[in-house]
Amino acid sequence: MTFLRNDIFIRALLRQPTPRTPVWLMRQAGRYLPEYNVTRSRAGSFLALCRNPDLAAEVTLQPLARYALDAAIVFSDILTIPDAMGLGLEFAEGEGPRLARPLREERDVGHLFVPDPGERLRYVTDAVSQARRALEGEVPLIGFAGSPFTLACYMVEGGGSSDFRQLKTMRYRRPDLLHRILDVNARAVTAYLNAQIEAGAQAVMIFDTWGGALAHADYLEFSLAYMRQVLSGLRREHDGARVPNILFTKGGGPWLEAMAGSGCDAVGIDWTVDLGTARTRVGGRVALQGNLDPAALFGDAEAIRGAVAAVLAQYGSGSGHVFNLGHGVSRFTPAESVAELVDSVHELSLAYH
Amino acid sequence: MTFLRNDIFIRALLRQPTPRTPVWLMRQAGRYLPEYNVTRSRAGSFLALCRNPDLAAEVTLQPLARYALDAAIVFSDILTIPDAMGLGLEFAEGEGPRLARPLREERDVGHLFVPDPGERLRYVTDAVSQARRALEGEVPLIGFAGSPFTLACYMVEGGGSSDFRQLKTMRYRRPDLLHRILDVNARAVTAYLNAQIEAGAQAVMIFDTWGGALAHADYLEFSLAYMRQVLSGLRREHDGARVPNILFTKGGGPWLEAMAGSGCDAVGIDWTVDLGTARTRVGGRVALQGNLDPAALFGDAEAIRGAVAAVLAQYGSGSGHVFNLGHGVSRFTPAESVAELVDSVHELSLAYH
Repeated sequence: MTFLRNDIFIRALLRQPTPRTPVWLMRQAGRYLPEYNVTRSRAGSFLALCRNPDLAAEVTLQPLARYALDAAIVFSDILTIPDAMGLGLEFAEGEGPRLARPLREERDVGHLFVPDPGERLRYVTDAVSQARRALEGEVPLIGFAGSPFTLACYMVEGGGSSDFRQLKTMRYRRPDLLHRILDVNARAVTAYLNAQIEAGAQAVMIFDTWGGALAHADYLEFSLAYMRQVLSGLRREHDGARVPNILFTKGGGPWLEAMAGSGCDAVGIDWTVDLGTARTRVGGRVALQGNLDPAALFGDAEAIRGAVAAVLAQYGSGSGHVFNLGHGVSRFTPAESVAELVDSVHELSLAYH
Repeated sequence: MTFLRNDIFIRALLRQPTPRTPVWLMRQAGRYLPEYNVTRSRAGSFLALCRNPDLAAEVTLQPLARYALDAAIVFSDILTIPDAMGLGLEFAEGEGPRLARPLREERDVGHLFVPDPGERLRYVTDAVSQARRALEGEVPLIGFAGSPFTLACYMVEGGGSSDFRQLKTMRYRRPDLLHRILDVNARAVTAYLNAQIEAGAQAVMIFDTWGGALAHADYLEFSLAYMRQVLSGLRREHDGARVPNILFTKGGGPWLEAMAGSGCDAVGIDWTVDLGTARTRVGGRVALQGNLDPAALFGDAEAIRGAVAAVLAQYGSGSGHVFNLGHGVSRFTPAESVAELVDSVHELSLAYH
């Protein structure tokens, strides 16, 4: 078991006391950082950067060099799994991701398989190992994956979507096919996250970016059920240490109670939900992560400090809160705004512990 | 006071008993209807159709000729107000709306004014009068407007947005400017809806398409507060009849209690919230409208009927429910699916009254 010089992120996820509230930011290694853009240019493209463990580990550590963040998250993309399944991932410049071979017919679904993370996703576990070594126990390293449902959205639509028409047509016309995709995805995500844990990830997060687009009952059946399946198969310890996990559904407000009962250690919250209300609703069963509006970072220093203070006050006193945005850092965020955010969290949260 | 042959929509909004659950669909006069596309071609463009009261009234009535809907909604667009304010509305084919002169500087905001609906928006009130006459009391006619906040999103961004970066930058950097815009918008929306009521609209609806993108406390301050202002200035009676109103925020789940306390008669609900839970949360203070996932109309007849049954069962017995989708009808909806929906609502809802 490796000694962690700063383990407050892990302790907060396990709802243990901490001297202050830990903070990290979704997409903290991203385009708002000039040094990230330099490394990305060196790699040639976003995908090439993901696939190069040396460079992926390098950008993983970049935000840590600038800010006193309490966790690192391995640089990667949620679509590595569909890519390893052979669906053909591409990023056209200035557009979102595309999958060259989306799943539309029963035949396509029949060919789906769980990729061996030790082979086709080796570049990710290598990036995890290298980032973990480079961190030298400074802060914990987070591994992650897309949720089975969110991966299915891309796999069926072939890219992003505003209405998920293909996916939802399948949900209403061939729910059996959608369930088959989701089951394969759940097994793939489980194996992938366990491989990241074995490679050195000290916590893992499931990103359910699109579960919030589902009807109320559909979320439980088509998204949460498969995240439960993943959670039930996840390693909870490695190398003598607990490996906590975080479940995040963007727009997940309507299902917080169900998410808290899914077997996860922590639930990520977006900015539309009051954090105090969320805390009451989950009833001390899980830690909470969130939930500043990423747009608050477009404000000046005073506005950022005020917005941080409001989030901390909503959560209130005691353990079990990891400060984060309610979604990823925008590429238009001024780098100095993140410093203001991190420093404000560290300073203002002392009063709540 | 004109006699309405079918007034169950109005009575449901006022939480009075009805023999069955009324149904209409947001965007029921739209591109999924072949006859709509014919009329639109005749007009030349979407905007030309909006601005031609004869043709707007014609398409308003088209879905009524096909389906046994319990209400008509005047064909128009929420951006008529910013257009009347001189911001220059355009629709590029295949893209969303654009405003040629978005509000970015204090100077722009200083020039904003409340357009006189009798002049610059006369084409809308004319469409209302003509549609009302053509309906001959068959079912009630709904008038509508965008919410002050939703209009501000377009006015500041200059079009649609995935992150509302300009709007939210203003919210954090110059909240005073945003409040000035919202106040002008609230007065404009009030005058506009009252003009529609005077022209013959028998109910009105406020569409808050983007309020759900706000942080929890921001929704109350920047969206709901201004809808309250509109509601407090709305005519509640015309021609001896009550004119009920409906407040709809897409993604409004986190704020249902506050919406129910805003002074509205009914709250529109999207599909992410369980309708039974919503009914408990609003505590009998308002009627509810909603909330089938529009994608259910991509299913076959049996799937549609099952989905309708589930929504009716969630609401349960008693008055105060208007059946609708949780958002507008998709242009990709088969026209026969809407017939299945309407017939299912009429048939299956009898058991709940």
